[in-house]
Amino acid sequence: MLTFEGQKIQGSQNIVAKLSSLPFQQCQHSITTVDCQPSGPAGGMLVFVSGNLQLAGEQHALKFSQMFHLMPTPQGTFYVLNDIFRLNYA
Amino acid sequence: MLTFEGQKIQGSQNIVAKLSSLPFQQCQHSITTVDCQPSGPAGGMLVFVSGNLQLAGEQHALKFSQMFHLMPTPQGTFYVLNDIFRLNYA
Repeated sequence: MLTFEGQKIQGSQNIVAKLSSLPFQQCQHSITTVDCQPSGPAGGMLVFVSGNLQLAGEQHALKFSQMFHLMPTPQGTFYVLNDIFRLNYA
Repeated sequence: MLTFEGQKIQGSQNIVAKLSSLPFQQCQHSITTVDCQPSGPAGGMLVFVSGNLQLAGEQHALKFSQMFHLMPTPQGTFYVLNDIFRLNYA
């Protein structure tokens, strides 16, 4: 599930539809910090990222923070169970 | 476990020692956003907070982002399994 600027979206199809609907074509991510912790006995991993977003044609970068909760699959891969995104307004 | 500005600290005693050692006596939290999501079948909860910190005697507020992973106990309470804190520098 994704919480994007407070908007709650569930299901991979809905999340793809939301991200595809964002009103820009290009967005450059510049990562400032990455912190990780194991999330418990199920083998998940928490990833906390902060940095800057630069939209094409915009002069100023936007600061953001985002967290992901990655869960393991039986195949040895991970999927994103939780995703929370926020812009950090000045 | 706590990750504080990239520093990893494990165990409640070590975490209390770290938080007690911070070089100020008063810090006012002003919360701007709170987002929550369930973290999986174990009944945990992810809480993502952003806002401002105002230290006593400082003119400018510091922006911060922080996430908590709360896990349930058999007694019906929650404990903090994961805590990641970052200042968001301009």
